[in-house]
Amino acid sequence: MKEIFSHRSIRRYANRDIDDATLNKILEAGTRASNTGNMQIYSIIVTRSSEIKQQLAPAHFNQPMVTNAPVVLTICADVSRFVHWCQLSNANVGFDNFESFITATVDACLAAQNIALEAEHNGLGICYLGTTTYNADKIIEVLNLPHGVMPVTTMTLGYPAEEPPLTPRLPMRAVVHYERYNSFSDSDIQEIYASAEADEQNKKFVAENKKENLAQVFAEVRYTKEANEHFSNVLKETLQRQKLF
Amino acid sequence: MKEIFSHRSIRRYANRDIDDATLNKILEAGTRASNTGNMQIYSIIVTRSSEIKQQLAPAHFNQPMVTNAPVVLTICADVSRFVHWCQLSNANVGFDNFESFITATVDACLAAQNIALEAEHNGLGICYLGTTTYNADKIIEVLNLPHGVMPVTTMTLGYPAEEPPLTPRLPMRAVVHYERYNSFSDSDIQEIYASAEADEQNKKFVAENKKENLAQVFAEVRYTKEANEHFSNVLKETLQRQKLF
Repeated sequence: MKEIFSHRSIRRYANRDIDDATLNKILEAGTRASNTGNMQIYSIIVTRSSEIKQQLAPAHFNQPMVTNAPVVLTICADVSRFVHWCQLSNANVGFDNFESFITATVDACLAAQNIALEAEHNGLGICYLGTTTYNADKIIEVLNLPHGVMPVTTMTLGYPAEEPPLTPRLPMRAVVHYERYNSFSDSDIQEIYASAEADEQNKKFVAENKKENLAQVFAEVRYTKEANEHFSNVLKETLQRQKLF
Repeated sequence: MKEIFSHRSIRRYANRDIDDATLNKILEAGTRASNTGNMQIYSIIVTRSSEIKQQLAPAHFNQPMVTNAPVVLTICADVSRFVHWCQLSNANVGFDNFESFITATVDACLAAQNIALEAEHNGLGICYLGTTTYNADKIIEVLNLPHGVMPVTTMTLGYPAEEPPLTPRLPMRAVVHYERYNSFSDSDIQEIYASAEADEQNKKFVAENKKENLAQVFAEVRYTKEANEHFSNVLKETLQRQKLF
Protein backbone atom coordinates (compact mmCIF):
# COMPACT_ATOMS: atom_id res chain seq x y z
CA MET A 1 0.00 0.00 0.00
CA LYS A 2 1.47 3.31 -1.13
CA GLU A 3 0.79 5.13 2.15
CA ILE A 4 2.62 2.48 4.20
CA PHE A 5 5.70 2.17 2.02
CA SER A 6 6.12 5.89 1.42
CA HIS A 7 5.66 6.96 5.04
CA ARG A 8 8.14 9.41 6.52
CA SER A 9 7.64 11.45 9.66
CA ILE A 10 6.93 15.10 8.79
CA ARG A 11 8.23 17.67 11.26
CA ARG A 12 7.78 20.88 9.24
CA TYR A 13 4.31 21.95 8.21
CA ALA A 14 2.90 24.41 5.69
CA ASN A 15 0.94 27.36 7.03
CA ARG A 16 -2.38 25.77 6.10
CA ASP A 17 -5.15 24.55 8.35
CA ILE A 18 -6.90 21.17 8.16
CA ASP A 19 -10.61 21.53 7.39
CA ASP A 20 -13.15 19.90 9.68
CA ALA A 21 -14.44 17.39 7.13
CA THR A 22 -10.94 16.07 6.45
CA LEU A 23 -10.10 15.90 10.13
CA ASN A 24 -13.35 14.12 10.94
CA LYS A 25 -12.74 11.53 8.23
CA ILE A 26 -9.24 10.91 9.61
CA LEU A 27 -10.51 10.52 13.16
CA GLU A 28 -13.29 8.21 11.99
CA ALA A 29 -10.59 6.06 10.36
CA GLY A 30 -9.15 5.60 13.84
CA THR A 31 -12.40 4.18 15.14
CA ARG A 32 -12.52 1.55 12.35
CA ALA A 33 -9.47 -0.25 13.76
CA SER A 34 -9.99 -3.56 15.56
CA ASN A 35 -10.43 -3.18 19.30
CA THR A 36 -11.01 -5.45 22.25
CA GLY A 37 -14.65 -6.53 22.58
CA ASN A 38 -15.67 -3.44 20.58
CA MET A 39 -15.51 -1.49 23.87
CA GLN A 40 -13.46 1.30 22.26
CA ILE A 41 -11.63 2.05 25.48
CA TYR A 42 -9.59 4.88 24.03
CA SER A 43 -10.04 8.59 23.34
CA ILE A 44 -8.51 11.20 21.08
CA ILE A 45 -7.99 14.76 22.25
CA VAL A 46 -7.80 17.24 19.37
CA THR A 47 -5.76 20.36 20.08
CA ARG A 48 -6.04 23.28 17.66
CA SER A 49 -5.75 26.11 20.21
CA SER A 50 -2.32 27.82 20.19
CA GLU A 51 -2.62 28.40 23.90
CA ILE A 52 -3.06 24.71 24.70
CA LYS A 53 -0.30 23.74 22.26
CA GLN A 54 2.00 26.11 24.17
CA GLN A 55 1.01 24.36 27.39
CA LEU A 56 1.61 20.92 25.89
CA ALA A 57 4.99 21.84 24.37
CA PRO A 58 7.15 21.43 27.51
CA ALA A 59 5.72 17.93 28.05
CA HIS A 60 7.17 17.13 24.62
CA PHE A 61 10.53 18.74 25.47
CA ASN A 62 9.55 21.72 23.32
CA GLN A 63 9.83 19.84 20.03
CA PRO A 64 8.73 22.55 17.54
CA MET A 65 6.13 20.32 15.83
CA VAL A 66 3.79 20.73 18.80
CA THR A 67 3.35 24.47 18.34
CA ASN A 68 3.86 24.53 14.55
CA ALA A 69 1.42 21.82 13.51
CA PRO A 70 -2.17 22.96 12.91
CA VAL A 71 -3.48 19.94 14.82
CA VAL A 72 -2.08 17.92 17.70
CA LEU A 73 -3.78 14.64 18.61
CA THR A 74 -3.23 13.13 22.05
CA ILE A 75 -4.26 9.50 21.92
CA CYS A 76 -5.30 8.02 25.23
CA ALA A 77 -6.10 4.71 26.82
CA ASP A 78 -9.52 5.52 28.32
CA VAL A 79 -11.76 3.28 30.39
CA SER A 80 -13.65 6.17 32.01
CA ARG A 81 -16.53 6.38 29.53
CA PHE A 82 -17.04 2.62 29.68
CA VAL A 83 -16.91 2.59 33.48
CA HIS A 84 -19.41 5.48 33.65
CA TRP A 85 -21.78 3.47 31.45
CA CYS A 86 -21.37 0.37 33.62
CA GLN A 87 -22.06 2.34 36.77
CA LEU A 88 -25.22 3.82 35.27
CA SER A 89 -26.24 0.28 34.31
CA ASN A 90 -25.71 -1.11 37.79
CA ALA A 91 -22.93 -3.37 36.48
CA ASN A 92 -20.14 -4.47 38.81
CA VAL A 93 -17.23 -3.12 36.76
CA GLY A 94 -13.50 -3.65 37.46
CA PHE A 95 -11.44 -1.77 34.90
CA ASP A 96 -9.27 0.16 37.39
CA ASN A 97 -6.28 -2.07 36.85
CA PHE A 98 -3.15 -2.72 34.82
CA GLU A 99 -4.62 -5.33 32.46
CA SER A 100 -7.32 -2.86 31.42
CA PHE A 101 -4.68 -0.19 30.84
CA ILE A 102 -2.57 -2.46 28.62
CA THR A 103 -5.61 -3.62 26.65
CA ALA A 104 -6.66 0.00 26.17
CA THR A 105 -3.12 0.97 25.17
CA VAL A 106 -2.96 -1.66 22.43
CA ASP A 107 -6.36 -0.56 21.11
CA ALA A 108 -5.41 3.14 21.25
CA CYS A 109 -2.29 2.47 19.20
CA LEU A 110 -4.11 0.47 16.53
CA ALA A 111 -6.51 3.42 16.20
CA ALA A 112 -3.55 5.84 16.09
CA GLN A 113 -1.94 4.06 13.17
CA ASN A 114 -5.20 4.09 11.21
CA ILE A 115 -5.34 7.84 11.83
CA ALA A 116 -1.75 8.26 10.64
CA LEU A 117 -2.35 6.36 7.40
CA GLU A 118 -5.69 8.01 6.64
CA ALA A 119 -4.03 11.39 7.26
CA GLU A 120 -1.30 10.55 4.76
CA HIS A 121 -3.92 9.26 2.34
CA ASN A 122 -5.42 12.77 2.53
CA GLY A 123 -2.12 14.50 1.73
CA LEU A 124 -1.15 15.30 5.32
CA GLY A 125 2.09 14.55 7.11
CA ILE A 126 2.33 13.22 10.62
CA CYS A 127 4.88 12.83 13.38
CA TYR A 128 4.47 10.68 16.48
CA LEU A 129 5.83 12.03 19.75
CA GLY A 130 7.24 9.30 22.00
CA THR A 131 7.63 11.89 24.74
CA THR A 132 3.98 11.26 25.64
CA THR A 133 4.68 8.50 28.15
CA TYR A 134 7.65 10.36 29.65
CA ASN A 135 5.56 13.31 30.68
CA ALA A 136 2.08 11.82 30.83
CA ASP A 137 1.57 13.51 34.21
CA LYS A 138 1.99 16.99 32.66
CA ILE A 139 -0.26 16.14 29.70
CA ILE A 140 -2.96 14.90 32.07
CA GLU A 141 -2.89 18.25 33.83
CA VAL A 142 -3.04 20.35 30.65
CA LEU A 143 -5.81 18.29 29.01
CA ASN A 144 -7.72 17.73 32.23
CA LEU A 145 -7.79 13.95 31.88
CA PRO A 146 -9.90 12.24 34.57
CA HIS A 147 -9.24 8.95 36.35
CA GLY A 148 -9.21 6.06 33.91
CA VAL A 149 -7.56 8.10 31.15
CA MET A 150 -3.86 7.92 30.26
CA PRO A 151 -2.15 9.48 27.24
CA VAL A 152 -0.11 6.86 25.35
CA THR A 153 0.99 8.62 22.19
CA THR A 154 0.72 11.97 20.44
CA MET A 155 0.63 12.80 16.75
CA THR A 156 1.20 16.16 15.11
CA LEU A 157 -0.67 16.66 11.84
CA GLY A 158 -0.33 19.15 9.01
CA TYR A 159 0.38 19.65 5.33
CA PRO A 160 4.05 18.82 4.72
CA ALA A 161 6.61 21.59 4.18
CA GLU A 162 9.46 19.13 3.72
CA GLU A 163 10.21 15.96 1.78
CA PRO A 164 12.61 13.92 3.89
CA PRO A 165 14.09 10.70 2.49
CA LEU A 166 12.81 7.28 3.63
CA THR A 167 14.38 6.22 6.91
CA PRO A 168 16.44 3.05 6.59
CA ARG A 169 15.33 0.09 8.71
CA LEU A 170 17.12 -2.95 10.06
CA PRO A 171 17.18 -6.01 7.77
CA MET A 172 13.98 -8.04 8.09
CA ARG A 173 15.79 -10.95 9.72
CA ALA A 174 16.42 -8.67 12.73
CA VAL A 175 12.71 -8.33 13.37
CA VAL A 176 11.03 -11.52 12.11
CA HIS A 177 11.42 -14.89 13.81
CA TYR A 178 10.03 -18.15 12.42
CA GLU A 179 8.19 -20.63 14.65
CA ARG A 180 10.20 -19.81 17.78
CA TYR A 181 12.45 -16.98 18.90
CA ASN A 182 15.91 -17.49 17.43
CA SER A 183 18.53 -15.97 19.65
CA PHE A 184 21.19 -13.99 17.81
CA SER A 185 24.89 -14.74 17.96
CA ASP A 186 27.28 -11.82 18.44
CA SER A 187 28.17 -11.89 14.77
CA ASP A 188 24.45 -11.89 13.80
CA ILE A 189 24.06 -8.71 15.82
CA GLN A 190 27.11 -7.11 14.25
CA GLU A 191 25.76 -7.93 10.79
CA ILE A 192 22.27 -6.65 11.61
CA TYR A 193 23.53 -3.26 12.76
CA ALA A 194 26.42 -2.93 10.26
CA SER A 195 24.51 -0.81 7.80
CA ALA A 196 23.22 1.61 10.47
CA GLU A 197 26.74 1.95 11.85
CA ALA A 198 28.17 2.66 8.40
CA ASP A 199 25.59 5.38 7.68
CA GLU A 200 27.28 8.79 7.24
CA GLN A 201 24.62 10.66 9.22
CA ASN A 202 24.99 8.22 12.10
CA LYS A 203 28.78 8.52 11.99
CA LYS A 204 28.32 12.28 12.36
CA PHE A 205 26.12 11.74 15.45
CA VAL A 206 28.80 9.56 16.99
CA ALA A 207 31.49 12.21 16.40
CA GLU A 208 29.29 15.11 17.59
CA ASN A 209 28.49 13.24 20.78
CA LYS A 210 32.12 12.26 21.31
CA LYS A 211 31.18 8.60 21.62
CA GLU A 212 32.94 5.50 20.32
CA ASN A 213 30.00 4.09 18.39
CA LEU A 214 26.30 4.41 17.53
CA ALA A 215 25.02 2.14 20.30
CA GLN A 216 26.65 4.43 22.86
CA VAL A 217 24.83 7.44 21.38
CA PHE A 218 21.52 5.62 21.84
CA ALA A 219 22.19 4.14 25.28
CA GLU A 220 24.26 6.91 26.86
CA VAL A 221 22.98 10.11 25.23
CA ARG A 222 19.50 9.72 23.75
CA TYR A 223 17.80 7.05 25.88
CA THR A 224 19.83 6.74 29.05
CA LYS A 225 19.40 4.18 31.81
CA GLU A 226 18.96 7.04 34.28
CA ALA A 227 16.18 8.70 32.27
CA ASN A 228 14.44 5.38 31.52
CA GLU A 229 14.42 4.47 35.20
CA HIS A 230 13.23 7.92 36.24
CA PHE A 231 10.40 7.89 33.70
CA SER A 232 9.47 4.33 34.68
CA ASN A 233 8.82 5.54 38.20
CA VAL A 234 6.88 8.59 37.02
CA LEU A 235 4.84 6.36 34.72
CA LYS A 236 3.92 3.91 37.47
CA GLU A 237 2.99 6.75 39.85
CA THR A 238 0.92 8.41 37.15
CA LEU A 239 -0.90 5.17 36.33
CA GLN A 240 -1.62 4.71 40.01
CA ARG A 241 -3.00 8.24 40.24
CA GLN A 242 -5.18 7.63 37.15
CA LYS A 243 -6.41 4.39 38.74
CA LEU A 244 -5.00 2.17 36.01
CA PHE A 245 -2.40 0.23 37.95
CA MET B 1 -8.71 4.56 2.42
CA LYS B 2 -10.67 1.52 1.32
CA GLU B 3 -8.77 -0.94 3.56
CA ILE B 4 -9.46 1.10 6.69
CA PHE B 5 -13.15 1.73 6.12
CA SER B 6 -13.96 -1.80 4.95
CA HIS B 7 -12.09 -3.61 7.72
CA ARG B 8 -13.85 -6.42 9.53
CA SER B 9 -12.20 -9.08 11.64
CA ILE B 10 -12.10 -12.40 9.78
CA ARG B 11 -12.38 -15.50 11.95
CA ARG B 12 -12.97 -18.17 9.27
CA TYR B 13 -10.28 -18.83 6.68
CA ALA B 14 -10.17 -20.61 3.34
CA ASN B 15 -7.97 -23.68 3.07
CA ARG B 16 -5.26 -21.77 1.20
CA ASP B 17 -1.75 -20.94 2.30
CA ILE B 18 -0.08 -17.52 2.15
CA ASP B 19 2.95 -17.52 -0.14
CA ASP B 20 6.29 -16.31 1.19
CA ALA B 21 6.53 -13.25 -1.06
CA THR B 22 3.13 -11.98 0.09
CA LEU B 23 3.91 -12.66 3.73
CA ASN B 24 7.29 -10.94 3.48
CA LYS B 25 5.72 -7.85 1.91
CA ILE B 26 3.14 -7.73 4.71
CA LEU B 27 5.79 -8.07 7.40
CA GLU B 28 7.93 -5.43 5.73
CA ALA B 29 4.93 -3.10 5.87
CA GLY B 30 5.08 -3.48 9.65
CA THR B 31 8.64 -2.21 9.76
CA ARG B 32 7.73 0.95 7.82
CA ALA B 33 5.63 2.26 10.74
CA SER B 34 7.01 5.11 12.83
CA ASN B 35 8.94 3.94 15.85
CA THR B 36 10.81 5.54 18.71
CA GLY B 37 14.31 6.69 17.73
CA ASN B 38 14.25 4.16 14.87
CA MET B 39 15.35 1.54 17.41
CA GLN B 40 12.68 -0.93 16.22
CA ILE B 41 12.35 -2.47 19.66
CA TYR B 42 9.74 -5.01 18.60
CA SER B 43 9.70 -8.45 16.99
CA ILE B 44 7.23 -10.56 15.08
CA ILE B 45 7.06 -14.32 15.54
CA VAL B 46 5.58 -16.12 12.53
CA THR B 47 3.86 -19.41 13.31
CA ARG B 48 2.97 -21.73 10.43
CA SER B 49 3.63 -25.04 12.18
CA SER B 50 0.44 -26.87 13.21
CA GLU B 51 2.23 -28.23 16.23
CA ILE B 52 3.14 -24.80 17.57
CA LYS B 53 -0.34 -23.44 16.77
CA GLN B 54 -1.74 -26.28 18.90
CA GLN B 55 0.58 -25.24 21.71
CA LEU B 56 -0.43 -21.58 21.39
CA ALA B 57 -4.16 -22.31 21.26
CA PRO B 58 -4.82 -22.70 25.01
CA ALA B 59 -3.12 -19.34 25.66
CA HIS B 60 -5.83 -17.87 23.42
CA PHE B 61 -8.59 -19.78 25.21
CA ASN B 62 -8.75 -22.18 22.24
CA GLN B 63 -10.28 -19.64 19.89
CA PRO B 64 -10.45 -21.68 16.65
CA MET B 65 -8.68 -19.00 14.55
CA VAL B 66 -5.34 -19.95 16.09
CA THR B 67 -5.32 -23.46 14.68
CA ASN B 68 -7.38 -22.72 11.54
CA ALA B 69 -5.44 -19.73 10.20
CA PRO B 70 -2.49 -20.56 7.92
CA VAL B 71 -0.36 -17.96 9.73
CA VAL B 72 -0.34 -16.67 13.29
CA LEU B 73 1.74 -13.59 14.11
CA THR B 74 2.74 -12.91 17.70
CA ILE B 75 3.82 -9.30 17.95
CA CYS B 76 6.20 -8.53 20.78
CA ALA B 77 7.76 -5.61 22.55
CA ASP B 78 11.42 -6.57 22.29
CA VAL B 79 14.45 -4.73 23.68
CA SER B 80 16.70 -7.81 23.69
CA ARG B 81 18.29 -7.36 20.25
CA PHE B 82 18.98 -3.68 21.00
CA VAL B 83 20.46 -4.50 24.42
CA HIS B 84 22.65 -7.23 22.90
CA TRP B 85 24.00 -4.67 20.40
CA CYS B 86 24.66 -2.14 23.17
CA GLN B 87 26.50 -4.73 25.23
CA LEU B 88 28.70 -5.70 22.26
CA SER B 89 29.38 -1.97 21.78
CA ASN B 90 30.42 -1.42 25.36
CA ALA B 91 27.47 0.95 25.85
CA ASN B 92 25.95 1.37 29.31
CA VAL B 93 22.38 0.37 28.43
CA GLY B 94 19.31 0.58 30.70
CA PHE B 95 16.29 -0.82 28.89
CA ASP B 96 15.26 -3.34 31.56
CA ASN B 97 12.41 -1.20 32.83
CA PHE B 98 8.76 -0.27 32.49
CA GLU B 99 9.23 2.86 30.36
CA SER B 100 11.14 0.81 27.77
CA PHE B 101 8.37 -1.79 27.78
CA ILE B 102 5.65 0.81 27.19
CA THR B 103 7.64 2.52 24.43
CA ALA B 104 8.22 -0.85 22.78
CA THR B 105 4.54 -1.75 23.16
CA VAL B 106 3.39 1.41 21.39
CA ASP B 107 5.88 0.79 18.56
CA ALA B 108 4.91 -2.88 18.27
CA CYS B 109 1.23 -1.94 17.92
CA LEU B 110 1.86 0.67 15.22
CA ALA B 111 3.77 -2.01 13.30
CA ALA B 112 0.92 -4.47 13.90
CA GLN B 113 -1.67 -2.19 12.39
CA ASN B 114 0.47 -1.63 9.28
CA ILE B 115 0.68 -5.41 8.97
CA ALA B 116 -3.10 -5.74 9.31
CA LEU B 117 -3.80 -3.15 6.62
CA GLU B 118 -1.18 -4.43 4.20
CA ALA B 119 -2.58 -7.94 4.70
CA GLU B 120 -6.06 -6.69 3.82
CA HIS B 121 -4.63 -4.79 0.86
CA ASN B 122 -3.36 -8.19 -0.37
CA GLY B 123 -6.76 -9.85 -0.07
CA LEU B 124 -6.20 -11.44 3.32
CA GLY B 125 -8.37 -11.26 6.41
CA ILE B 126 -7.04 -10.76 9.91
CA CYS B 127 -8.21 -11.12 13.48
CA TYR B 128 -6.45 -9.67 16.53
CA LEU B 129 -6.38 -11.78 19.69
CA GLY B 130 -6.60 -9.68 22.85
CA THR B 131 -5.94 -12.82 24.86
CA THR B 132 -2.21 -12.23 24.27
CA THR B 133 -1.68 -10.11 27.39
CA TYR B 134 -3.84 -12.40 29.53
CA ASN B 135 -1.65 -15.42 28.94
CA ALA B 136 1.65 -13.82 27.95
CA ASP B 137 3.44 -16.18 30.35
CA LYS B 138 2.24 -19.24 28.41
CA ILE B 139 3.07 -17.67 25.03
CA ILE B 140 6.59 -16.86 26.27
CA GLU B 141 7.07 -20.50 27.11
CA VAL B 142 5.80 -21.83 23.78
CA LEU B 143 7.74 -19.35 21.64
CA ASN B 144 10.83 -19.43 23.82
CA LEU B 145 10.93 -15.66 24.30
CA PRO B 146 14.05 -14.49 26.17
CA HIS B 147 14.38 -11.69 28.74
CA GLY B 148 13.47 -8.33 27.22
CA VAL B 149 10.70 -9.80 25.04
CA MET B 150 6.99 -9.60 25.83
CA PRO B 151 4.08 -10.54 23.54
CA VAL B 152 1.59 -7.67 23.28
CA THR B 153 -0.80 -8.74 20.57
CA THR B 154 -1.45 -11.62 18.17
CA MET B 155 -2.95 -11.61 14.71
CA THR B 156 -4.32 -14.55 12.75
CA LEU B 157 -4.00 -14.23 8.99
CA GLY B 158 -5.60 -16.05 6.08
CA TYR B 159 -7.79 -15.77 3.00
CA PRO B 160 -11.34 -15.01 4.17
CA ALA B 161 -14.01 -17.71 4.16
CA GLU B 162 -16.69 -15.35 5.46
CA GLU B 163 -18.01 -11.85 4.77
CA PRO B 164 -19.22 -10.46 8.07
CA PRO B 165 -20.98 -7.09 8.15
CA LEU B 166 -19.20 -3.93 9.36
CA THR B 167 -19.20 -3.72 13.15
CA PRO B 168 -21.05 -0.65 14.42
CA ARG B 169 -19.00 1.82 16.47
CA LEU B 170 -19.94 4.40 19.09
CA PRO B 171 -20.81 7.86 17.77
CA MET B 172 -17.66 9.93 17.16
CA ARG B 173 -18.49 12.30 20.00
CA ALA B 174 -17.91 9.41 22.43
CA VAL B 175 -14.30 9.12 21.36
CA VAL B 176 -13.15 12.58 20.25
CA HIS B 177 -12.63 15.48 22.64
CA TYR B 178 -11.81 19.01 21.56
CA GLU B 179 -9.08 21.02 23.31
CA ARG B 180 -9.62 19.47 26.73
CA TYR B 181 -11.34 16.34 28.01
CA ASN B 182 -15.07 16.97 28.28
CA SER B 183 -16.61 14.89 31.00
CA PHE B 184 -19.86 13.24 30.04
CA SER B 185 -23.12 13.75 31.88
CA ASP B 186 -25.24 10.69 32.66
CA SER B 187 -27.56 11.53 29.81
CA ASP B 188 -24.61 11.92 27.41
CA ILE B 189 -23.55 8.40 28.32
CA GLN B 190 -27.05 7.04 27.85
CA GLU B 191 -27.23 8.67 24.43
CA ILE B 192 -23.77 7.39 23.42
CA TYR B 193 -24.63 3.78 24.20
CA ALA B 194 -28.30 3.88 23.13
CA SER B 195 -27.69 2.45 19.69
CA ALA B 196 -25.52 -0.44 20.99
CA GLU B 197 -28.17 -1.24 23.59
CA ALA B 198 -30.94 -1.24 20.97
CA ASP B 199 -29.01 -3.61 18.68
CA GLU B 200 -30.88 -6.92 18.24
CA GLN B 201 -27.74 -9.04 18.46
CA ASN B 202 -26.76 -7.32 21.71
CA LYS B 203 -30.27 -7.77 23.11
CA LYS B 204 -29.87 -11.47 22.42
CA PHE B 205 -26.57 -11.53 24.36
CA VAL B 206 -28.27 -9.88 27.31
CA ALA B 207 -31.06 -12.46 27.31
CA GLU B 208 -28.72 -15.43 26.81
CA ASN B 209 -26.57 -14.29 29.71
CA LYS B 210 -29.61 -13.62 31.90
CA LYS B 211 -28.46 -10.08 32.61
CA GLU B 212 -30.44 -6.85 32.85
CA ASN B 213 -28.50 -4.92 30.25
CA LEU B 214 -25.52 -4.86 27.88
CA ALA B 215 -23.10 -3.20 30.30
CA GLN B 216 -23.63 -6.08 32.73
CA VAL B 217 -22.74 -8.59 30.01
CA PHE B 218 -19.45 -6.77 29.44
CA ALA B 219 -18.55 -6.11 33.07
CA GLU B 220 -19.91 -9.24 34.72
CA VAL B 221 -19.57 -11.93 32.05
CA ARG B 222 -17.02 -11.06 29.37
CA TYR B 223 -14.45 -8.83 31.15
CA THR B 224 -14.97 -9.33 34.86
CA LYS B 225 -13.32 -7.43 37.69
CA GLU B 226 -12.01 -10.72 39.05
CA ALA B 227 -10.40 -11.77 35.75
CA ASN B 228 -8.97 -8.30 35.10
CA GLU B 229 -7.39 -8.21 38.55
CA HIS B 230 -6.05 -11.73 38.22
CA PHE B 231 -4.52 -11.02 34.80
CA SER B 232 -3.11 -7.71 36.06
CA ASN B 233 -1.10 -9.62 38.64
CA VAL B 234 0.03 -12.24 36.13
CA LEU B 235 1.02 -9.47 33.72
CA LYS B 236 3.13 -7.64 36.31
CA GLU B 237 4.83 -10.88 37.41
CA THR B 238 5.50 -11.83 33.80
CA LEU B 239 6.97 -8.39 33.02
CA GLN B 240 9.18 -8.72 36.07
CA ARG B 241 10.36 -12.14 34.94
CA GLN B 242 11.07 -10.78 31.43
CA LYS B 243 13.02 -7.89 33.03
CA LEU B 244 10.69 -5.21 31.69
CA PHE B 245 9.25 -3.88 34.93
